[in-house]
Amino acid sequence: MLASIAHRVPPRGYGPWEQVASTLAEGLVARGHDVTLFATADSLTTAHLHAEAPAGYEEDPTVDAKVCEALHIAACFERAGQFDVISNQFDFLPLVFSRLVSTPVVTTVHGFSSERILPVYRAYDDVTHHVAISDADRHPDLTYAATIHHGIDVDAFSPGAGDGGYLLFLGRIHPDKGTATAIEVARRAGLPLVVAGVVHDEVYHRREVLPHVDGDRVRYVGPVGPAQRDRLLGGAVALLHLIDFDEPFGLSVVESMAAGTPVIAYPRGSMAELVTPGLTGFLVDDVPGAVTAVAAAAGLDRTACRREARARFAAGRMVADYEQLFARVVEEHAARMGHDVPGRRVGRAGTVGGRVSERLSEQ
Amino acid sequence: MLASIAHRVPPRGYGPWEQVASTLAEGLVARGHDVTLFATADSLTTAHLHAEAPAGYEEDPTVDAKVCEALHIAACFERAGQFDVISNQFDFLPLVFSRLVSTPVVTTVHGFSSERILPVYRAYDDVTHHVAISDADRHPDLTYAATIHHGIDVDAFSPGAGDGGYLLFLGRIHPDKGTATAIEVARRAGLPLVVAGVVHDEVYHRREVLPHVDGDRVRYVGPVGPAQRDRLLGGAVALLHLIDFDEPFGLSVVESMAAGTPVIAYPRGSMAELVTPGLTGFLVDDVPGAVTAVAAAAGLDRTACRREARARFAAGRMVADYEQLFARVVEEHAARMGHDVPGRRVGRAGTVGGRVSERLSEQ
Repeated sequence: MLASIAHRVPPRGYGPWEQVASTLAEGLVARGHDVTLFATADSLTTAHLHAEAPAGYEEDPTVDAKVCEALHIAACFERAGQFDVISNQFDFLPLVFSRLVSTPVVTTVHGFSSERILPVYRAYDDVTHHVAISDADRHPDLTYAATIHHGIDVDAFSPGAGDGGYLLFLGRIHPDKGTATAIEVARRAGLPLVVAGVVHDEVYHRREVLPHVDGDRVRYVGPVGPAQRDRLLGGAVALLHLIDFDEPFGLSVVESMAAGTPVIAYPRGSMAELVTPGLTGFLVDDVPGAVTAVAAAAGLDRTACRREARARFAAGRMVADYEQLFARVVEEHAARMGHDVPGRRVGRAGTVGGRVSERLSEQ
Repeated sequence: MLASIAHRVPPRGYGPWEQVASTLAEGLVARGHDVTLFATADSLTTAHLHAEAPAGYEEDPTVDAKVCEALHIAACFERAGQFDVISNQFDFLPLVFSRLVSTPVVTTVHGFSSERILPVYRAYDDVTHHVAISDADRHPDLTYAATIHHGIDVDAFSPGAGDGGYLLFLGRIHPDKGTATAIEVARRAGLPLVVAGVVHDEVYHRREVLPHVDGDRVRYVGPVGPAQRDRLLGGAVALLHLIDFDEPFGLSVVESMAAGTPVIAYPRGSMAELVTPGLTGFLVDDVPGAVTAVAAAAGLDRTACRREARARFAAGRMVADYEQLFARVVEEHAARMGHDVPGRRVGRAGTVGGRVSERLSEQ
């Protein structure tokens, strides 16, 4: 498994790609698979760790991103012969190595950072097996082997009572994430708002967020670690996720559900796939709709919300989905190569139900 | 041959890496070799052209450097089986593909842009055959197959009379290149200075250069194309190359010599290998030394200067050096692989004398 090296695996704070790589690697090891994780040297894993970068390039200014990425990706592909399948959780760059090895590559597309990287995905569409992280994020030009929603460790989140009397914004401070819209909705709903997350757009933060922060009606608590996040989610009446972009997936959305906290979201990107209206939250079209939903959210059954999160977004479900896909890819590959599947190392799909599409890329 | 895709091959203006790739590719084709040049789509060559990038990323803002570089390098390595040898004129990134193919890779190290890229060269030192572009640029940590000085098309430069009554600065406007020092030397020598080149350091240009530009004693003519460069070199009393860094090679230095124009240089980096004092110019230690050398330069034999440039820095010599090295690498590789050299495609070293070191990297 080739992880991103922007952050450690698992990330100390922000780092959704690294979080997914961690959850998947640990889950596969727990199921008895022989996993090598290519990640930063300070990563924590029960898999075999191979590191070229001492630390994440977003965390250590002495780490040169371009140099370390090149060594990191090459290290994995140079050892391709040792693996039945390569799980690429990195980005587009590993794709250009994929024709040089015979090991099949399954690429989880964590989102298109820009239209400019599409030519690489198109050029290697016949080689790699793409995984979409939501149906909404499937690009019409690409062939996908499956859609696999992310899963989280539901038990890492306490069932919250939602008795803090506040609404919560949890995510990057950026116009895409709708921080300012959340402030407006909380004001109109007559509830305080807690804003938590890293600042990804300084100008927006200074102009649209900070002027409203008064430590009372709007509190900004900065980036939060797991413990504080758990407390904040558990006490919130609802999570406000009023995004202004087609978000491929929202880890904070399913984390909120795991705490029992309903999510009020704009129905963009993957939101309609994640939020079940009236059960785990509401999909709303505008600020008045969101204000109305705040009152309704307080009446939802938080235990049922958490139960739904466990049923649909537990780590075990994601790991089983990937296990099933990897097994199928390895089997197909062996059939093409005309040899047997080394069943000892990658098992067949187990009994855990998965949401793996029937179609594999036609090669 | 894998060229840089910052600019077209050959470059319209600035682009020393692309210039060397062009000169070498054309020279090898002229000697009967079957050459495929991986470069931008607008490149001009007699070799087979393979392009992934429509244009140079420094020339066309719609070209994404990281995406195009990845596709460009992979395209070459995916076709490695078609080639006896890959000539890497790019930079460090192709090295990380080199263990995934069996074709030998000869990497011309055009200079270390930063100490940060050294780990890649170190990690692949046992795989690639490094070529230094001057002995001065050899890094103690690396193994080199040869030092091969760049060559130029001497006949593209007219023998100049040096009768313009001015000194010339030709290069990037940057503290490394000593533009301000050249202005000071010209002032003390009592001669006008013409400054030609692209601005690579805006602040330096505004603070240290522009205040002296009066259109008379100091003229700034911007970047120059081949025709204007030829005229400027031909009319100059001397070229002032008072660099403040260890320059791996100076194409403008040997171009000046080709025009018959002596070079006054600080003895840093490769300068002692390029300038023959009293014949093609002078190596000086400080501003007073440079001022003294200006008077002496006017007395040098410009025909002898040009003759020396032709003897040591003609394109033919460079092409023959690379041809000899490639042949040796291919032969060694075939011996290791236990099969014959395909003599049809890459000939043995010819009769043209070369400056190829006896030592190949020990693999």
